[in-house]
Amino acid sequence: MKALVYHGPGKKAWEEKPKPEIKDPTDAIVKIFKTTICGTDLHILKGDVPAVTDGRIIGHEGVGIIEEVGKGVTSFKKGDHVLISCITSCGKCEYCKKQMYSQCENGGWILGHLIDGTQAEYVRIPHADNSLYPIPKGADEEALVMLSDILPTGLECGVLNGKVKPGDTIAIVGAGPIGLAALLTAQFFTPSEIIMIDLDDNRLKVARTFGATQAINSEKENPVEKIMSLTKGKGVDVAIEAVGLPATFELCQKIVGIGGHIPNIGVHGKSVDLFLDKLWSRNITITTRLVDTVTTPMLLKTVQSGKIDPKKLITHRFKLDQIMDAYDTFENAGKKKTLKVIMTNENE
Amino acid sequence: MKALVYHGPGKKAWEEKPKPEIKDPTDAIVKIFKTTICGTDLHILKGDVPAVTDGRIIGHEGVGIIEEVGKGVTSFKKGDHVLISCITSCGKCEYCKKQMYSQCENGGWILGHLIDGTQAEYVRIPHADNSLYPIPKGADEEALVMLSDILPTGLECGVLNGKVKPGDTIAIVGAGPIGLAALLTAQFFTPSEIIMIDLDDNRLKVARTFGATQAINSEKENPVEKIMSLTKGKGVDVAIEAVGLPATFELCQKIVGIGGHIPNIGVHGKSVDLFLDKLWSRNITITTRLVDTVTTPMLLKTVQSGKIDPKKLITHRFKLDQIMDAYDTFENAGKKKTLKVIMTNENE
Amino acid sequence: MKALVYHGPGKKAWEEKPKPEIKDPTDAIVKIFKTTICGTDLHILKGDVPAVTDGRIIGHEGVGIIEEVGKGVTSFKKGDHVLISCITSCGKCEYCKKQMYSQCENGGWILGHLIDGTQAEYVRIPHADNSLYPIPKGADEEALVMLSDILPTGLECGVLNGKVKPGDTIAIVGAGPIGLAALLTAQFFTPSEIIMIDLDDNRLKVARTFGATQAINSEKENPVEKIMSLTKGKGVDVAIEAVGLPATFELCQKIVGIGGHIPNIGVHGKSVDLFLDKLWSRNITITTRLVDTVTTPMLLKTVQSGKIDPKKLITHRFKLDQIMDAYDTFENAGKKKTLKVIMTNENE
Amino acid sequence: MKALVYHGPGKKAWEEKPKPEIKDPTDAIVKIFKTTICGTDLHILKGDVPAVTDGRIIGHEGVGIIEEVGKGVTSFKKGDHVLISCITSCGKCEYCKKQMYSQCENGGWILGHLIDGTQAEYVRIPHADNSLYPIPKGADEEALVMLSDILPTGLECGVLNGKVKPGDTIAIVGAGPIGLAALLTAQFFTPSEIIMIDLDDNRLKVARTFGATQAINSEKENPVEKIMSLTKGKGVDVAIEAVGLPATFELCQKIVGIGGHIPNIGVHGKSVDLFLDKLWSRNITITTRLVDTVTTPMLLKTVQSGKIDPKKLITHRFKLDQIMDAYDTFENAGKKKTLKVIMTNENE
Repeated sequence: MKALVYHGPGKKAWEEKPKPEIKDPTDAIVKIFKTTICGTDLHILKGDVPAVTDGRIIGHEGVGIIEEVGKGVTSFKKGDHVLISCITSCGKCEYCKKQMYSQCENGGWILGHLIDGTQAEYVRIPHADNSLYPIPKGADEEALVMLSDILPTGLECGVLNGKVKPGDTIAIVGAGPIGLAALLTAQFFTPSEIIMIDLDDNRLKVARTFGATQAINSEKENPVEKIMSLTKGKGVDVAIEAVGLPATFELCQKIVGIGGHIPNIGVHGKSVDLFLDKLWSRNITITTRLVDTVTTPMLLKTVQSGKIDPKKLITHRFKLDQIMDAYDTFENAGKKKTLKVIMTNENE
Repeated sequence: MKALVYHGPGKKAWEEKPKPEIKDPTDAIVKIFKTTICGTDLHILKGDVPAVTDGRIIGHEGVGIIEEVGKGVTSFKKGDHVLISCITSCGKCEYCKKQMYSQCENGGWILGHLIDGTQAEYVRIPHADNSLYPIPKGADEEALVMLSDILPTGLECGVLNGKVKPGDTIAIVGAGPIGLAALLTAQFFTPSEIIMIDLDDNRLKVARTFGATQAINSEKENPVEKIMSLTKGKGVDVAIEAVGLPATFELCQKIVGIGGHIPNIGVHGKSVDLFLDKLWSRNITITTRLVDTVTTPMLLKTVQSGKIDPKKLITHRFKLDQIMDAYDTFENAGKKKTLKVIMTNENE
Repeated sequence: MKALVYHGPGKKAWEEKPKPEIKDPTDAIVKIFKTTICGTDLHILKGDVPAVTDGRIIGHEGVGIIEEVGKGVTSFKKGDHVLISCITSCGKCEYCKKQMYSQCENGGWILGHLIDGTQAEYVRIPHADNSLYPIPKGADEEALVMLSDILPTGLECGVLNGKVKPGDTIAIVGAGPIGLAALLTAQFFTPSEIIMIDLDDNRLKVARTFGATQAINSEKENPVEKIMSLTKGKGVDVAIEAVGLPATFELCQKIVGIGGHIPNIGVHGKSVDLFLDKLWSRNITITTRLVDTVTTPMLLKTVQSGKIDPKKLITHRFKLDQIMDAYDTFENAGKKKTLKVIMTNENE
Repeated sequence: MKALVYHGPGKKAWEEKPKPEIKDPTDAIVKIFKTTICGTDLHILKGDVPAVTDGRIIGHEGVGIIEEVGKGVTSFKKGDHVLISCITSCGKCEYCKKQMYSQCENGGWILGHLIDGTQAEYVRIPHADNSLYPIPKGADEEALVMLSDILPTGLECGVLNGKVKPGDTIAIVGAGPIGLAALLTAQFFTPSEIIMIDLDDNRLKVARTFGATQAINSEKENPVEKIMSLTKGKGVDVAIEAVGLPATFELCQKIVGIGGHIPNIGVHGKSVDLFLDKLWSRNITITTRLVDTVTTPMLLKTVQSGKIDPKKLITHRFKLDQIMDAYDTFENAGKKKTLKVIMTNENE
């Protein structure tokens, strides 16, 4: 089969690899139907994630069709259409029992990281019963690719950890795909105001069409002053960090109001300054989280009932064997106005 | 009347001041029966709290007897024995309605800070109906002085914000009065292990008699190594910061386990390093809080029913007019093995 | 002034009464601008609420303008536009401190019940600081009349107590004004399916335009069978009781799924059968509640930001002195397709 | 092997049965070391649980040693000491993923009910990885038998569902083993007062030694009057139903205070009267639950750290082949002052 393989910093290839096989009785082999590219994949390709070694097939998102299941798999059978979770969970370790699948002792984020991933014609999914979700008949499978990672990440790490409530004023720092996923899912809880902050006017424009009530280009306006003015000096109820840089985390600290929440989504490469001298007495909550994908069943219901439309995030479409072009489009997101790209495997 | 008055950094005097009078209809005048000294009072006297100006009577803890009430006070009358909360709350602003009394728009921490305080023969308490608590007949009033500030602070900022649960392994960094208050109140929720960390062997010894299951002198042992060994490399469920220094907050980050909580109690004078590069994916919650004293009614019940004995925290007793000696004893806590001091007004 | 006065079962009159005066320093006198009629008022007029005595002015909803405030009122002044809460709260008793205003020891539901109410040209509001809410400049005051009682009731007793979540399937038994208020506010939390059950086809039709995804006329269809079929035999996540009869409460028990919630809103006149033999092992939660109106500030924000449109509930409008006609319209709701009526005081 | 076999209403025998074998790869065979008898077993033997058929080995509690595991079992191996949960959970169905193991689509309460149980020399445990718990080295295994069912039942259905908090006044209706388990585990949360109600003076005496602060024999005293007097007319914060009769559930409704909780533990054979005419406006929460045994890991920690001593519940000890005597002792609990009996398998 063909797969997108990492060959050390800066090197990737769409090349022939052996088709994966069942190794453990709880495995399933899934034929990929649609997959996408995540910002994390770009980090991997740059060499920022040393655990990923030469020869690894990357990718951790996608939908597909069950090709084969191990003897221990009871919920799925050949031919089933499935959504692949970016998080593999065994369902029986201490963390899985607390619904903290991201920290699964026998899984977690391993796809396209510690084991071969989804940017391929086939993928082996360990602990299939707990790591795949059945796709309802008639569902729009392209939309569901957004449920592998980006939508549960925005929802769990940003919106749920931030305890967004009806009537809240929230800010989302970063209008990339993950910030936009937070924007879409925040509306499950009907905040009154959603202020989007980014450097890219196109993304801010998109954010407005997705439901943002305010958009601030932080190169053109001082976001702290603007937000304090919009909130009569009170600051926001929730400041979602969706970038992963010291400056953006610091901005969240400057705009959060008394009793507010700073849920961190961003992947951080260094430590940041925490202004405890200012915040110690302000009843603030800061959270971190790797997506647990515990909300996948709920997201499936909201997509099926039309309460959320994740397809809005998809800007470009490719055939799976055009994946090198897809990467180019995703890497040049600013110029090409890319949010998420979809690659479809058209082989029968 | 006599009162302890701040006269600029390093200067205090026990001197004559006018007896306070009712200014607003919701005020009460309380004759102080017993009061104590808080670590914050030492900060004020050093000049660390610029909002406190020359001439201010300090102190924000105590019990006493109602001397007079304004016309708007309906819950108390002359002669009632009352517990004074360190937090004044109006009961009608946005924050009071959310039970965040510390942030009251018409109160908050003002006693011995922005208005005259309790280290005096009499004190004026604004918004008396919401800022005083009736002392049940027969209660041990000395014990209740610990409910003005230190016990609700340990409980709310440390234990409740840390979501301490039965079976948890928790660490408390700092075995001063506030850390010990967290230790006492943590036991409301039956953690399995309570690890106390300090530099003072006497305080650690006290902590053991108060219920700590482990005590680590962090000058003699490496606390991170010790805790990782005690927890089989998992770290603690809750790491309570009860000091207020960058090093102790950093220690909390190093010992907290996956999914854990770092509730900050310490008053911080500078920003601290937040290790987001390590913690971003570990499902951690960090909280800050100024005590709201919303738990005072609950604490009163637990004291009355003998479930907690706050008198354990009291090591030295003085007459109110020996307050300069009391300060000396409190300032030299290490040498004199002081935890909390009590000063009693014996004038009729 | 003119007022709607109860004169024993079946007797009411729009008659002259003395204008109310300040009695306590925390009182305000409000000139009524707009008011409405509640189902409870009809019960009172029938004689079902014995605490209401001959001569009482009824009504507990409305908006108006402050005419005068007592000396203890600090948040309002003459000329302020205010929303009147149906619940009077002192802000300082045990229950108010737990945000359970409905149970206030010095208030609760007293307007138009134990003291004179809002169906008059003027009303005295005790504990004004905690029982009135400022109306933002430019707000649609007619819409806000729905926030006195009906919207917080649907939200607090039905939606919040029922813990409605994104993706849930919920049923609302009763499509009267209160059931419709639950329908509107349930959508704050994005349930996937909202099944409305009633006997009145017009109300079911209205429910569909308000967001119901299914409507069942329980005279024409078996609601249990229909719901079991819609939910593949699982039952609903939340079954909101919005009628107050044994039969409707029993229906909720029959349609609720494992782990589900039955939040009761209905005012019940007799005890009901609880099927513990069937439910004891099904992890069910049943709640009761008198509206606390703690969500009023949040509702004000959602109305101001256009997230909810309470005016949809208003079907008929009258001048205040046409109140006898308004009652007639409200009492003949089926024939006249009435939901809520608004009476406006046009006297300057 | 020998086993206790049900042979229709009123008939049981300790007789030879085939030793169980692995049927599914996720099964384990456990050699029983210690087991006990549950009130439910008596119901089964009377014929009250029609799903239990002639020939069934009953019993759903115990500790033992792994004899053999299926190929899909990864957490246990031959020779491991294990605690058997009364609830079998697959770890992958909709309910298991919500931690509602009692409702597991592939398990739930099946041991000694739908499949052969633990009152035998060997038992087959399906879904062993999720249904067994490793026993820590050196643990008191007799004590842990109480963790198979009775302690998590008292804790989850009674204490956690009742949201017992520090300072609360709680009542437990029924001082049988399950009520006493609620009494022991309620103390994890430090209520101020625990009022125990029963008809048996011995059990009430035991309750006092277990931590009850009040004991009411409801044949000798009017429990409603007594509790109203003890609580100054307010009623209790939590009224735990631990009997399963209409009269005891009604008693809970009469003693619960405003805002209170009625968590039902009792197994009910008929419907009960719910006094909605009185309770509709009192902000009450009623819950039902079949134990999910999600608290087993936490209970193991609290037992290991000495925070709770479940052995207190054991009054009589037998060899496993004396099980008919053990039943006699358990059935005549009043006369013999029996709480829980333990049967030990002494065969090597």
